[in-house]
Amino acid sequence: MKVAVDAMGGDFGPKVTVEGALKASREYKIEALLVGLEDLIKKEYDKLDHSKSKVTIINAAESIGMGEGLLSFRRKKRSSIRIGAELVKKGEAEAFVSTGNTAAVVYLSKKILGALKGVEKPALSLLVPNLRGLTLLIDVGANVNCRPHHLEQFGVMGHIFMESVLGLKNPRIGLMSIGEEDSKGNELTKEAFERFQASPLNFIGNVEGKDIYSGKADIIVSDGFTGNVALKVSEGVVETFFYMARTELMKNFFSKIGLFLMKRNLRKIYKRIDYAEYGGAQLLGINGVCIIGHGRSNANAVKNAVGLARDFVQNKVQEKIQNGIANISYAIGKAEG
Amino acid sequence: MKVAVDAMGGDFGPKVTVEGALKASREYKIEALLVGLEDLIKKEYDKLDHSKSKVTIINAAESIGMGEGLLSFRRKKRSSIRIGAELVKKGEAEAFVSTGNTAAVVYLSKKILGALKGVEKPALSLLVPNLRGLTLLIDVGANVNCRPHHLEQFGVMGHIFMESVLGLKNPRIGLMSIGEEDSKGNELTKEAFERFQASPLNFIGNVEGKDIYSGKADIIVSDGFTGNVALKVSEGVVETFFYMARTELMKNFFSKIGLFLMKRNLRKIYKRIDYAEYGGAQLLGINGVCIIGHGRSNANAVKNAVGLARDFVQNKVQEKIQNGIANISYAIGKAEG
Repeated sequence: MKVAVDAMGGDFGPKVTVEGALKASREYKIEALLVGLEDLIKKEYDKLDHSKSKVTIINAAESIGMGEGLLSFRRKKRSSIRIGAELVKKGEAEAFVSTGNTAAVVYLSKKILGALKGVEKPALSLLVPNLRGLTLLIDVGANVNCRPHHLEQFGVMGHIFMESVLGLKNPRIGLMSIGEEDSKGNELTKEAFERFQASPLNFIGNVEGKDIYSGKADIIVSDGFTGNVALKVSEGVVETFFYMARTELMKNFFSKIGLFLMKRNLRKIYKRIDYAEYGGAQLLGINGVCIIGHGRSNANAVKNAVGLARDFVQNKVQEKIQNGIANISYAIGKAEG
Repeated sequence: MKVAVDAMGGDFGPKVTVEGALKASREYKIEALLVGLEDLIKKEYDKLDHSKSKVTIINAAESIGMGEGLLSFRRKKRSSIRIGAELVKKGEAEAFVSTGNTAAVVYLSKKILGALKGVEKPALSLLVPNLRGLTLLIDVGANVNCRPHHLEQFGVMGHIFMESVLGLKNPRIGLMSIGEEDSKGNELTKEAFERFQASPLNFIGNVEGKDIYSGKADIIVSDGFTGNVALKVSEGVVETFFYMARTELMKNFFSKIGLFLMKRNLRKIYKRIDYAEYGGAQLLGINGVCIIGHGRSNANAVKNAVGLARDFVQNKVQEKIQNGIANISYAIGKAEG
């Protein structure tokens, strides 16, 4: 299996992505196509152990920075993200992994690869750790304006991902709202609620913001605006808390010793709640496998993202999504007719 | 000044509200009208020190529980929340404070007191602590479906609250969105963005979920659906983190000692980030002062909520909001004409 890896992605670029790709190639027995500035990649590659790994470098003369916008995505015709997506389009790679600018990967993948048949809006999903396991949030930012049937499609795609990649049978789907009662929500969610109830999915009703971490649902569906705000709020809280803990606790002698004593365990907790560790976000519904890792991914997180891409391919997630969307359309067509 | 206090509110009812009202009466030199089941209130009252306090008990035969819905709000004609709002309506109290069912207080206050002239949608605002000071979130749940001009009115009301109650000159207003660039957002926020830019408010542009705690803006405006989700996500993260810290860290000997050593400081941090301490949410734009404290408020938080109500009345916030809304309509009328 060949997986294209955006070597220019992430906060650290080739310094981290090349090592991650090498590790992935060794561990998952895949061929990594490292896409980016050849010289930079080669420099990193030469420093590392490349036994038992298969890596090919594909030159891409441009790269898209984390802060760049739509104009750059369009203008840079030889960006590593564009070329990575094109490798999938041409069948030269079976998946594309990037830890680069999320908006760029979403935009260029949609544009170059297009959506799977029947999928109206490909969506970005992300696994976040909860108290008992993992919750899939979908959509976390690909679609800011949604109609009720889009949310239902997100539910179907999430269901298929959780079943086929995580092996979770009949995952519980919750709808992000502002209260658990059926009647709570805005115009969008109230209508989506009814569609979910009429669907064959395992719909458990409305959930609230706090349920992202409670483990009450395996999948939480929302429009991409709400999902993105929710995700960034939670990042903000964690950052603020760790910042406050560091600054406030270091002021006090006893707390300082206390912090020292629990350092190792605190790091374990942080690692558990840090979703960068879980392989990145999945662009579901696109006609090609595309995984987007967090910008601050280390080599291990890049490796995990490649592993997730491999699981996608091996489990034929794309094919299953296309069938799932067709089936739910059929089931709903029947219910309505 | 007379302030009606819902004695039946909160997770602990009269056990906490009566003490809070007594403290408030003493500290702020106001008369507290305790609304609720007379016997229960009297029982708590008799246990406490009531020197230098002025308290009147107003009997209300019914109370609305935290989990109850719209049907109860309507059916219970003698609920403490309804009677509290009616005291303001009749001019027998200058403000109403409740730590009860938020949806009930919003619904009954809107119904009984109505909106201030020119205000289309009264909104629920909440002060949350950030790294440097306090950020006002508006709306956190009163209006789930909003139009762009509603968000603008929220901005005006938030501006007036921050200026007149917190004494913050020309507060910075951010619009909750999914990226800082002007072009980011959904249909609602993009249009609201333009309205804010044309307004005389100190608009700093789009902010993200993480900025609730960064202190980048003094006021963050959103529709009530988004605001409520954001707030509950952040509650969930904090709860989860403290739960994990407790359970994970207690498993390890060194961490256990560490936790013991920093206990006092951790509690200080928790208190600082716990917005229940900051006096509760404000129902802005209603024709009467109405403060809604958090359900888990202790006596001190109830006292703070009454203090906030007094600040509202003393600073003539209602009058200023009415003028502010009229002025912005005028300013915008001019700009558009």
